[in-house]
Amino acid sequence: MIFQLRYRLLEVQKSCCIYPDSACTERKRRPSPLYGQQDMNEPLLDNSEGQLFLTEAFKVIIEEVLCKGTDVKEKVCEWREPEELAALLDLELRENGEPQHQLLQRIRDVAKYSVKTNHPRFFNQLFAGVDYHALTGRFLTEALNTSQYTYEVAPVFVLMEDEVLSKLRSLVGWAEGDGIFCPGGTMSNMYAMNVARYRAFPEVKLKGMWSLPRLAVFTSQQSHYSVMKAAAFQGIGTENVFKVKMQGHLSLPLFTYQGAVPFFVHATSGTTVQGAFDPLEPIADICDRQGLWMHVDAAWGGSVLFSKEHKHLMRGVERADSVTWNPHKMMLTGLQCSAILLKDTTHLLKHCHSADAKYLFQQDKFYDTSLDTGDKSIQCGRKVDCLKLWLMWKAVGSKGLEERVDRAFTHTRYLVEEMKRREGFELIGKPLFVNVCFWFIPPSLRGKENSPDYNDRLSKVAPVIKERMMKQGTMMLGYQPQGGRVNFFRMIVISPQLSHQDMTFCLNEIERLGNDL
Amino acid sequence: MIFQLRYRLLEVQKSCCIYPDSACTERKRRPSPLYGQQDMNEPLLDNSEGQLFLTEAFKVIIEEVLCKGTDVKEKVCEWREPEELAALLDLELRENGEPQHQLLQRIRDVAKYSVKTNHPRFFNQLFAGVDYHALTGRFLTEALNTSQYTYEVAPVFVLMEDEVLSKLRSLVGWAEGDGIFCPGGTMSNMYAMNVARYRAFPEVKLKGMWSLPRLAVFTSQQSHYSVMKAAAFQGIGTENVFKVKMQGHLSLPLFTYQGAVPFFVHATSGTTVQGAFDPLEPIADICDRQGLWMHVDAAWGGSVLFSKEHKHLMRGVERADSVTWNPHKMMLTGLQCSAILLKDTTHLLKHCHSADAKYLFQQDKFYDTSLDTGDKSIQCGRKVDCLKLWLMWKAVGSKGLEERVDRAFTHTRYLVEEMKRREGFELIGKPLFVNVCFWFIPPSLRGKENSPDYNDRLSKVAPVIKERMMKQGTMMLGYQPQGGRVNFFRMIVISPQLSHQDMTFCLNEIERLGNDL
Repeated sequence: MIFQLRYRLLEVQKSCCIYPDSACTERKRRPSPLYGQQDMNEPLLDNSEGQLFLTEAFKVIIEEVLCKGTDVKEKVCEWREPEELAALLDLELRENGEPQHQLLQRIRDVAKYSVKTNHPRFFNQLFAGVDYHALTGRFLTEALNTSQYTYEVAPVFVLMEDEVLSKLRSLVGWAEGDGIFCPGGTMSNMYAMNVARYRAFPEVKLKGMWSLPRLAVFTSQQSHYSVMKAAAFQGIGTENVFKVKMQGHLSLPLFTYQGAVPFFVHATSGTTVQGAFDPLEPIADICDRQGLWMHVDAAWGGSVLFSKEHKHLMRGVERADSVTWNPHKMMLTGLQCSAILLKDTTHLLKHCHSADAKYLFQQDKFYDTSLDTGDKSIQCGRKVDCLKLWLMWKAVGSKGLEERVDRAFTHTRYLVEEMKRREGFELIGKPLFVNVCFWFIPPSLRGKENSPDYNDRLSKVAPVIKERMMKQGTMMLGYQPQGGRVNFFRMIVISPQLSHQDMTFCLNEIERLGNDL
Repeated sequence: MIFQLRYRLLEVQKSCCIYPDSACTERKRRPSPLYGQQDMNEPLLDNSEGQLFLTEAFKVIIEEVLCKGTDVKEKVCEWREPEELAALLDLELRENGEPQHQLLQRIRDVAKYSVKTNHPRFFNQLFAGVDYHALTGRFLTEALNTSQYTYEVAPVFVLMEDEVLSKLRSLVGWAEGDGIFCPGGTMSNMYAMNVARYRAFPEVKLKGMWSLPRLAVFTSQQSHYSVMKAAAFQGIGTENVFKVKMQGHLSLPLFTYQGAVPFFVHATSGTTVQGAFDPLEPIADICDRQGLWMHVDAAWGGSVLFSKEHKHLMRGVERADSVTWNPHKMMLTGLQCSAILLKDTTHLLKHCHSADAKYLFQQDKFYDTSLDTGDKSIQCGRKVDCLKLWLMWKAVGSKGLEERVDRAFTHTRYLVEEMKRREGFELIGKPLFVNVCFWFIPPSLRGKENSPDYNDRLSKVAPVIKERMMKQGTMMLGYQPQGGRVNFFRMIVISPQLSHQDMTFCLNEIERLGNDL
């Protein structure tokens, strides 16, 4: 096996230490087995063999995940019932290791039964498609494997994060400010709530909530559930989150609310289901008047700021105190890439979160320790999330990112027109963003809107179509009920792998799968 | 350029869509430029070109990060002052994109100026070295790019996370229980504190801290700073964290403490600096008697559970309610890989964190929705962190992981003996784990322990040696003051790339760099 790998790899790369004549062979261990009796004068792992394995695996990834995974003639998913899948994957972890060829087969299996989120017909999530430059950045991040807390161990990434955050802030409209990459939008929203609380009541860090009056958070009906998670986690309580109407206008006496003291308004740019944008200017007026922290959760919608044509959706965002923005969604950097951006220039983030660990943040270092940004974080070790975005941005420029955003809007318009031309597709509102929400009304329900069981029957349509598409693997899109509306589809059209024919296919496929319902 | 890439790649892989005769060429766009005028009937990105770029970048990663990055003849770091580095990297993000060859050069630059944490002479952090199977798992994770919240979009990873967590729990000594992978040990510790609070006072989720008595957290002097971060973030307050003596024995009247109600004891297995282990049995006795949640932060030390010889360090861990364990540290999975494990079988994790988002966790799905584990998390989108650990475990088996742990202990003994043989190396305690803490006493200070300025002068030794090693790039290890001790070195010897000669080199190098001080 090893010989075969070695032979194949000889074709790939002549300049690297996996070859006998290279510089670093002196540190090679016996060729096989990878793990066995130990000689402490030799490394435990043979780097050459490891690199051979990685190279073979890379070919499998290219073939199974990236070639087949973006090919419309291949399935989006290969559905299996959980019990069957568990058996197929043989997940059990055992005492002994396995030979390399078996591990390569395991990689093929993991790829085969995983959902192909890079596939042009994956419309299921707020991420879809693959950008190869971002993916390259992710591979490089993984290979370098460092932690984003000090200039000492992450010199490139400390400077790079600063540059990327600064550029994102400039799109928000801030010439200066602060920020940090977080493991996801929920964490970014939590940062905002925590920093807002600290600004209003700095004693909370030492004394906890008992030193504070009862607090109130305001958000809109359709805001993301992370605001509830944050309130629960941070000891504020979900009952102290008040959902108010923000679409259109705000009408709230925020000074005190059911006895609680308001401190935080959580607005949304791009709601999860419908892609709605709260009107930021009137919200900013109220926050200004009452000294409230204004946070904009633009995890999903933030990317409109790249587009001259569409950034008006977030008019007024520069008046916010903080913004959550997830480039791993519309910008396709890959999970995880979420930024919390702050207008603050007083180091609130650091004051609020620092714990001054002496083993990391020594003050007698030989360089400027303000570059050791790790104490701004609530984490200690922190994954490098800036490189993938930076490399993609370098590759296509702000213009390329703008094009991507504009194209998604164009796709949305096309999809909406296609739906209007067809019987049985009933749009829910006119999409303002790239979420297309609609019911499919099967022939048996058309014209029956006034039947007493109409909603009940309609609610069962999307789940059945979903089950069928998953089991046949032809495409993926999501559904949900919302407010008074029974189950409806939500289709997200952002993938750079996507073309009109994929959307046409999707509508045809819904008809094919649902016409008998 | 493209032709050259194409030619070189022809040697690599015959079965993939980057070749003209492959199945998916029908979806190719014009060969160049990557981004330009749009045709909506074509994908925005050309997959073939993207894959060519990724393949070229992969070769650079193999060569620069993995070959050179593990070669002792190459530097551990290529130190540059921040201003110089920023200029070298040309970080600015511009309107226009860049050609592929320039992007490849950027990848080389990022690699060149990044710290080589895979290098045998990187002793600086609680992670070091590279496992190629884990790295393969990370590449595969990145290529598949899904979110770990539902069986629908992550079928393989929902089952795999369950298996890996179950196996980790069995090493703790639990036949059943719960758990989840988190973005780092601090987050895992936060989960523990939050679930403990919820078990004691479930009303906190709705009503916040105002409905609760003032709470108290207990931990040891040397516990990780994340316990303070957690207390601040969750509204408990750092003043309500009481640091008590746990090394040796506990002596605390925990019932009420300065008027606060104890609910959570945060013990440590493997402290950050010295690698000390709190005695878990007596802590468990107290927690049992008083109904307190016992959490063990084994982010660093947990991996001793793989070793029959060393697991006694965590005797009693099975009596804990929760355990934090970071395989990205000693097990080398790569950041981020941290598990919070719970003994609980009553779905506390879900009850405590769920927000029942209907757009993700529909109850009318066609499969068992208990597989949609995302609502156990405080995150929404969550990176897949289980695959890298699973693949590495499959590759080497529990035995291989045990060998790795035992080998690190053996390295530690060797290093200690080497230090004892040499003048000028003064160990701080006898290492119980794989942290070796010591002062280097330069010749000018030897025998001067009673001088009034001894500590002051000694405190300046480690920072200067550190500066010199960084600027010359020969190796990296950390230093810090602690308690009454002035700056001392901490050397971590866990890398599978490590051999005795690297440790000998390190001691020689400290002498070389510090003998004139």
